[in-house]
Amino acid sequence: MNKIYRIGVDLGGTNIKVGVVNEANEIVGKASSPTGAQRPWQDIVADIAKTIDKALAAAGIGAQDCASLGVGCPGTIDSASGNIIYANNLAWDNVPLGKALGEIYPLPVRVANDANCATLGEVVAGAAKEYQSAVMLTLGTGVGGGVVIRGKLMEGGPGDTELGHTTLILGGEPCTCGRAGCLEAYASASAIVREGKRRAEEDPKSIMNEMMRKNGGKMNGRIPFDAARAGDAAGQKVVDDYIYWLAAGIANMVNIFRPEVVLLSGGVCNEGEYLTKPLQKLVAKFAYAGERMYIPPVLRAQLGNDAGIIGAANL
Amino acid sequence: MNKIYRIGVDLGGTNIKVGVVNEANEIVGKASSPTGAQRPWQDIVADIAKTIDKALAAAGIGAQDCASLGVGCPGTIDSASGNIIYANNLAWDNVPLGKALGEIYPLPVRVANDANCATLGEVVAGAAKEYQSAVMLTLGTGVGGGVVIRGKLMEGGPGDTELGHTTLILGGEPCTCGRAGCLEAYASASAIVREGKRRAEEDPKSIMNEMMRKNGGKMNGRIPFDAARAGDAAGQKVVDDYIYWLAAGIANMVNIFRPEVVLLSGGVCNEGEYLTKPLQKLVAKFAYAGERMYIPPVLRAQLGNDAGIIGAANL
Repeated sequence: MNKIYRIGVDLGGTNIKVGVVNEANEIVGKASSPTGAQRPWQDIVADIAKTIDKALAAAGIGAQDCASLGVGCPGTIDSASGNIIYANNLAWDNVPLGKALGEIYPLPVRVANDANCATLGEVVAGAAKEYQSAVMLTLGTGVGGGVVIRGKLMEGGPGDTELGHTTLILGGEPCTCGRAGCLEAYASASAIVREGKRRAEEDPKSIMNEMMRKNGGKMNGRIPFDAARAGDAAGQKVVDDYIYWLAAGIANMVNIFRPEVVLLSGGVCNEGEYLTKPLQKLVAKFAYAGERMYIPPVLRAQLGNDAGIIGAANL
Repeated sequence: MNKIYRIGVDLGGTNIKVGVVNEANEIVGKASSPTGAQRPWQDIVADIAKTIDKALAAAGIGAQDCASLGVGCPGTIDSASGNIIYANNLAWDNVPLGKALGEIYPLPVRVANDANCATLGEVVAGAAKEYQSAVMLTLGTGVGGGVVIRGKLMEGGPGDTELGHTTLILGGEPCTCGRAGCLEAYASASAIVREGKRRAEEDPKSIMNEMMRKNGGKMNGRIPFDAARAGDAAGQKVVDDYIYWLAAGIANMVNIFRPEVVLLSGGVCNEGEYLTKPLQKLVAKFAYAGERMYIPPVLRAQLGNDAGIIGAANL
């Protein structure tokens, strides 16, 4: 039997998700279990192994039928050694994850950042399947991302690319990283909430303010878009600013990497073309030598949670 | 005879510089000639070939003793095809430079952006010789740059990385690219001149103003540093701002690429440790998870004009 299967693990703060993928990058066996993030790392590794075994059983194969094992993990990874340098939501500090799994499975083990894995997954099997080079930005509580160049993950020295922690407006909105004015502070879902709340409070008669009141006084990432669609000027301002900032950040990535495609993931993408259409126009305007150069399409990621598993399996 | 030699061409707006390098990346034969930038590209290619032949003669070898030919060229390159998409200072638009040279020399021909070549040159034989991964920023009239990851040039899709055209303060100082607030608008030598002039005019009694007057009323990139060293507050403000902006831009590159070393080139680097010492401290402060992560040293490039030749020879 040829070793056509690969194992992908998406290790999150809440769940361990494992998939066994075949040559076509289809998931043929899946399993998951709770991470139990505050336990000693050795216990979590033991549960990763149990979950891998369940996924293998679901696929009807054994580890000996697999060519490799890949793990996507949040935090800062030294992918050369497979060590987790630091992972806040696992409370891990210098954990030799790759080595530990290599002692359990006689397979080549690779570890990479989860956002990187998701990007690779989308390139090999998702929204960027037709492309070789892609930048993905994940727009959630923060802004993460990954870069694939000619089919391979861009990995620098120890530590992962932090596309969200590049300046958009130095000295501007405070960022979680300690600087002020990072892309994350303007293009995250949290930024929409902050701006929505600010503009709704500034304009008590706005539809956006009313929507916030009806939501128990809480702003969320959808309200400004809904208000804008209902013709609300305050909501429109939040949406316009957000799109302007995000487009500027995407143009930065285009200028740095000249990717064939830019992918966006995270809840904000549910806004669909209402988000991506104006975004695309501004990216073309902001990109360096835009009129002469190829401007990559800005597409929505497709694979959801499977992206991380499939990407990890392709490390 | 083994083919241990490689040819490197640094094609500039003013001069064509050619070097033949040996295995140790020493230049063993050199030649140069004027570019004559406004001529038809075919004439320039003919002169590149003549200059290559002179450099080969100076090295006492022939093209048949060489393994490859590389060209560094300003502007926007499609390195996969060897085409110059656009080069402003050569007035070139879609010139098949790689193909044309391949018809003259029976060698593999590679073409890349000149800033990329200079970065590669510094990694294989210059200031970053001890490292595998480096980001270089060239601080001149504009801000160019290149990225080497694990010994290889990072090249995205068609077009080159434009590290200078990433936002530092979106909506801030106008940039040559049409946007406002790019790194280039804050970290170039032109930015020092602009800020120096502005601050000198604001403070007519400053030493910096006096220095500008003695220089025929013209500001340059050295005066603010000289004024600061002489204890001038206006000059010190220009220097402090510049170092702050440059450090923020370097931190962006560290967060994106996690290089082992950051190199700076261009006239500003003549300020030496007066520039790099405070810069290094701020980079450590600004970089993501700086206290846990490796902070690359910020070093001055060493090879000067030879960097481009040696880098091109190593494409």
